[in-house]
Amino acid sequence: MKIYKKAILPQGFKASGISCGIKKSGKLDLALFYSDLPASAAGLFTVNKMPAAPVILCKDVLKKENLVNAIIANSGNANCFNGANGLKDANETAKVLAKALGLSRENVLVASTGIIGRKLQINKIKSGIPKLIKGLSSQGIAGAKKAIMTTDTFAKEVTARFEIEGKSVTLCGVAKGAGMIAPDMATLLVFILTDADIIRSVLKKSLMASVEKSFNSITVDGCMSTNDSVILLANAAAGNVKISGGKAAKIFNQALETVCVELAKMIVRDGEGASKFIQIKVSEAKNFNQARKAALTIANSNLFKTAIYGENPNFGRIVAAIGASGVDVSEKDLKIKVSSLSRKDISVEVNLKQGSSSAIIYTSDLTPRYIKINAEYN
Amino acid sequence: MKIYKKAILPQGFKASGISCGIKKSGKLDLALFYSDLPASAAGLFTVNKMPAAPVILCKDVLKKENLVNAIIANSGNANCFNGANGLKDANETAKVLAKALGLSRENVLVASTGIIGRKLQINKIKSGIPKLIKGLSSQGIAGAKKAIMTTDTFAKEVTARFEIEGKSVTLCGVAKGAGMIAPDMATLLVFILTDADIIRSVLKKSLMASVEKSFNSITVDGCMSTNDSVILLANAAAGNVKISGGKAAKIFNQALETVCVELAKMIVRDGEGASKFIQIKVSEAKNFNQARKAALTIANSNLFKTAIYGENPNFGRIVAAIGASGVDVSEKDLKIKVSSLSRKDISVEVNLKQGSSSAIIYTSDLTPRYIKINAEYN
Repeated sequence: MKIYKKAILPQGFKASGISCGIKKSGKLDLALFYSDLPASAAGLFTVNKMPAAPVILCKDVLKKENLVNAIIANSGNANCFNGANGLKDANETAKVLAKALGLSRENVLVASTGIIGRKLQINKIKSGIPKLIKGLSSQGIAGAKKAIMTTDTFAKEVTARFEIEGKSVTLCGVAKGAGMIAPDMATLLVFILTDADIIRSVLKKSLMASVEKSFNSITVDGCMSTNDSVILLANAAAGNVKISGGKAAKIFNQALETVCVELAKMIVRDGEGASKFIQIKVSEAKNFNQARKAALTIANSNLFKTAIYGENPNFGRIVAAIGASGVDVSEKDLKIKVSSLSRKDISVEVNLKQGSSSAIIYTSDLTPRYIKINAEYN
Repeated sequence: MKIYKKAILPQGFKASGISCGIKKSGKLDLALFYSDLPASAAGLFTVNKMPAAPVILCKDVLKKENLVNAIIANSGNANCFNGANGLKDANETAKVLAKALGLSRENVLVASTGIIGRKLQINKIKSGIPKLIKGLSSQGIAGAKKAIMTTDTFAKEVTARFEIEGKSVTLCGVAKGAGMIAPDMATLLVFILTDADIIRSVLKKSLMASVEKSFNSITVDGCMSTNDSVILLANAAAGNVKISGGKAAKIFNQALETVCVELAKMIVRDGEGASKFIQIKVSEAKNFNQARKAALTIANSNLFKTAIYGENPNFGRIVAAIGASGVDVSEKDLKIKVSSLSRKDISVEVNLKQGSSSAIIYTSDLTPRYIKINAEYN
């Protein structure tokens, strides 16, 4: 398996990104991912009880096990908490795009990210669609990966290439996300495209397992979003023997997990205002949930995060966070190891000596820039 | 009932505060609260699974229903995560103080606040005790209320005076706390002294109810401390008819709740780096726990807190937090009202339209100063 730190479109996929005027800055804000062949699709979405309209639309399409040809995503407006208008606008977006592409609206997914509670400028999206489609013929993924960004400072992109019984398969992911990042899930949009031929049930299972170890294992600010969407399309253009389990599924799982973990780490590195990348590993916990809970409580502690920012070896804050997490621990067994704080990459290792389970969480520090970004974001 | 925004020592109580050298700055760091008469005592402590040694000591003394004559408290060192030495040092502190005051060590409580995981400078405390006791004769509460402070910018003090069947009773509270403030409980030390004559069971019940509405309803940074202690002493010096229930208990409860709520609000106002005081009321929830959970999730959202700091009407963040809290809510019923953001005191009212329960949480905004304070605190 080869990993590339850039997006390489798999066979049969095209993409496009334009500025349709949602962002006042004139930056790219409308993206399209398209496959000529109808693709099997799997998706995981926020568990926030106030989901944005596009999340509701996508869950509905995927529940019906429809094949998918296109994903349209806008940035700058989350289309969330817009009442009945929200769903109407998401449906209208799907309908207009489907018509322009000669598809049924049931084969189109929609995603949004940005400000919550502001009416979607649906006319700007509708007017932009012809130009967006035109971009498919020439752009590659360069525009689309930028058009999904909000406070991101760089595009997140990874590609894996691997072989399934002699056929080369490509799996490529792009992501956006920098703030409102917390497990279940981060405020993120992730689009993963592969030309693998794979049965739907394996596709879904593989996505769930990979998301658990990646997008559900990161936190920037502990804030859960309304719009989180991870969507995976597999269009079978590689012509491989259909993946249905066994060794081929293992290879696919590994490629997907690698792409997801790499994208997740990039999101944390680009965490709003982040100056440090922190890996927290809790081991020898009674069970996975306890390991994860302890790691997350440390990761979401503002006191811990500011200490790391200040390169201040105030490890009592780690002790306090572990105690606050409520997991089983005894003072005499607890071991904490922290790498040199002067580096950009920090590793925190906690050993609870209570059992044999472990969990890893990735997070960033809390800096004055986080506050500046979020005090002014509007 | 009369409320004074200053500490007035009830009859039979004395206090003292000195600098014994724990704080490098030379600021006051050792406090003593003393009653000539043995007092009934009640206490509530952190539920953190890594409690500091003095918390363990106090819980033990109170469990035995001992009468209490003295509380000794140091700031600058939390005496937490110090292994077996921690408890040894807390016991030694109680023993030396008891001997110097002619008491049994079983009648002394100990409290600490400050850095976690650093050996307590027990010799400095022991050397300071004679001077500390000497201060009792002249100081009033002026020194003690300052000697418990860490990052606090002002002393928190409130007194209530009320009558029980013609006898005047005084109830006075002092508190410290500014960061690591989260329910169950805030990082706080609270000492409440009253000359009321009251049976122990009513004292305990009254304290629990008051703490629920005050110190368990505030959050500055969502971080739970290892040292939180709220201790209430009642020495019966007022000579009132013993409070055992009925109208007299009601008056006492009201006084205690008022003192606790006022102190709790002061802690939030003095929240590390805080520029705003925020009251979040969630009403018409299915039950109290849901109301409280929604209010707390908003209060602990860094995105919400930075928006308030920036006077940025990004109310989508309140919607996202409510959704993230997992409480029952529907988009069409949800009502959110926020007072003018340009003021120092902000009120957020959320109506879930799901039932008839409500809860109030007090919090502060998240500012660059919070980060500066906590990046450098050491």
